[in-house]
Amino acid sequence: MTITLADLPTPSLILDRQRLLNNIARMQARARDLGVILRPHLKTAKSAKVAELAVGKAGPLTVSTLAEAAYFARAGFTDITYAVPMAPAKLTQAAAIMRDAPGLKLITDNIAVARAVAEQGRALGVTFAVLIKIDCGLGRAGIAPESELLLPLADALSQPGARLAGVLTHAGHSYHAKSIAEITRIAEEERQAVLLAASRLRAAGQDCAIVSVGATPTALFAKTLDGVTEMRPGNFVFFDLFQAGLGCCGMEDIAVSVLASVVSHHHGRNHLLIDAGGLALSKDTGANEHAPGTGYGRVCQPGGELPLPDLAVHDVHQEHGLVGTGQNEPVDFAAHPPGSRLRVLPNHVCMTGAMYERYHVVEGGNDAALNPAVIAEWDRVNGW
Amino acid sequence: MTITLADLPTPSLILDRQRLLNNIARMQARARDLGVILRPHLKTAKSAKVAELAVGKAGPLTVSTLAEAAYFARAGFTDITYAVPMAPAKLTQAAAIMRDAPGLKLITDNIAVARAVAEQGRALGVTFAVLIKIDCGLGRAGIAPESELLLPLADALSQPGARLAGVLTHAGHSYHAKSIAEITRIAEEERQAVLLAASRLRAAGQDCAIVSVGATPTALFAKTLDGVTEMRPGNFVFFDLFQAGLGCCGMEDIAVSVLASVVSHHHGRNHLLIDAGGLALSKDTGANEHAPGTGYGRVCQPGGELPLPDLAVHDVHQEHGLVGTGQNEPVDFAAHPPGSRLRVLPNHVCMTGAMYERYHVVEGGNDAALNPAVIAEWDRVNGW
Repeated sequence: MTITLADLPTPSLILDRQRLLNNIARMQARARDLGVILRPHLKTAKSAKVAELAVGKAGPLTVSTLAEAAYFARAGFTDITYAVPMAPAKLTQAAAIMRDAPGLKLITDNIAVARAVAEQGRALGVTFAVLIKIDCGLGRAGIAPESELLLPLADALSQPGARLAGVLTHAGHSYHAKSIAEITRIAEEERQAVLLAASRLRAAGQDCAIVSVGATPTALFAKTLDGVTEMRPGNFVFFDLFQAGLGCCGMEDIAVSVLASVVSHHHGRNHLLIDAGGLALSKDTGANEHAPGTGYGRVCQPGGELPLPDLAVHDVHQEHGLVGTGQNEPVDFAAHPPGSRLRVLPNHVCMTGAMYERYHVVEGGNDAALNPAVIAEWDRVNGW
Repeated sequence: MTITLADLPTPSLILDRQRLLNNIARMQARARDLGVILRPHLKTAKSAKVAELAVGKAGPLTVSTLAEAAYFARAGFTDITYAVPMAPAKLTQAAAIMRDAPGLKLITDNIAVARAVAEQGRALGVTFAVLIKIDCGLGRAGIAPESELLLPLADALSQPGARLAGVLTHAGHSYHAKSIAEITRIAEEERQAVLLAASRLRAAGQDCAIVSVGATPTALFAKTLDGVTEMRPGNFVFFDLFQAGLGCCGMEDIAVSVLASVVSHHHGRNHLLIDAGGLALSKDTGANEHAPGTGYGRVCQPGGELPLPDLAVHDVHQEHGLVGTGQNEPVDFAAHPPGSRLRVLPNHVCMTGAMYERYHVVEGGNDAALNPAVIAEWDRVNGW
């Protein structure tokens, strides 16, 4: 029996396979054109199926938790970079994951942690491969490329139990760029930061095999990645309203949405009530930075066309979403009777996806039929 | 072997049992003093263990998803109100849950849904008990108590397949009160709203057995609940920084926190980096409404004392938390070396908890030892 969207419980997480394939093909072409390896960040998709479509069965991958690393290692991926600064207490688990994924790589920017990594590597009988985290302007983690800490860090990672695998940075501040030109400029700063760090390491006699950059905006709009070996965009597989507002994709590229049911009409307050709230959509309101009025998500017909003009989720409570026009324009209540369904495009798909155990996969792009078939269920790895 | 906090992976969700018991005892005393039944909202705790401590083995409970209803029904709770407006497509699942929990009750404020409930009740061979949702000023869901829709809704729910179980409201706007006096005023409006609806129904010959109010602030500060039969606070079992800012609890009452590891120091940017970010803490920033500077959470020593003065999580990315002073005051880096641990009090515990599959339970209150033993793991029911 064919399952369709109409058969699914709500809220459910819907993945449009054709849009996913298009998005992956676009980024694969970018990596080819720029002459770098694509090491996608699976913190967004947290799915072995999506990873395999992007890079094949072994990797390379980037992950944000050791739960992801363990999941992808079990699924056969061997080349995995865990790109959140390492906590010493996680080294035993990392060593266990390396039995399935010998290409596991860690990151740090801290000398005490670097020493703990080498020490525990010796104790555990493994050699941890570690990249030094470089800050290219985001100001979250990492040392500046010209920091006096760079060579001591490399030395600490060159002791038995550890080895220096390279340098890594992330231009997350590109998400707040005001124009594509600004993204391109930040991409060049991102490149220059790791190039400088790599050249300082090499001048000191260190091997620096991996020179890694990555964020979806800079991966899309970098002019050159000469000297860089790999890029780690993550969001691009699905995109979301934040990326659309930033200019990285169109609405028709957003591959993930939340299927919700209309549960009531409130004419006096001019809103539809849906059963997707702060947990089903997340409370991330970042997309409003570039597109005010986005609220907690834009609303489509269940078939997944483009967003309905002027309709957005204006407020959320834990399990309630309030869908309105945000203007004096009245909601077209007759078009959305109680029991009918909508799909909500997410503000920030990394946060929204994290609430779901699986994707319900549909085939079809922008002009999908109103009630597409569900062709697969793909699992996700959440938590830690 | 005794497991302690120091043995847990990070991030982990920590529950202080003594604070939980104190919070439950306080609300039980309130319900007794006010002469109403306590029907706690388990959308916060999503835990059978917590439910049992609050109301014993059968209920009464309130839930926010049918996944919760099914979980509590399996655990032996029979009297459960699903307090989110019903979607017609969920009726088959509700009927299945009623086999274990015959006291399942639904809510609606919509005449088309009410008719669908009765119709499907007949088709499924069950009688759905339904409360009419009343709006007492929140403006999210429900009809006004004086609405002309009240009696037609009651009539639609008096057809075979359904029965009118009562009226229910939620003064969620009490969360935005500026003073305790304002909460008390809103509590009285909440009471008056359901009393008016109940009296109109009774005057029309309808039975209206349940007259239900509920929100943690109004439950704590109502002067009287005369005429009301039950209250449904939820957050009170744990409390959080929002409730502390509102004046509903002290910092020393907050029973749930996130255990995190320090993974780096950034002296130039004056922040500690921890491995609890937007997923581990949630991106809910509501607590800043009453306590500016709260950021994404206040920070305690791992033993769970009161928050460290001036230290808060000022920014989060998916798996990164940036802990700083928010002032020119320098962070005491020496007190928090890489690899050391902290506990973060959540802004909004309903959102934070939803990312975790379980609680690690510790015993002890305000002056817990620095490395308390983990006395139990309690599961949670997430998703839909």
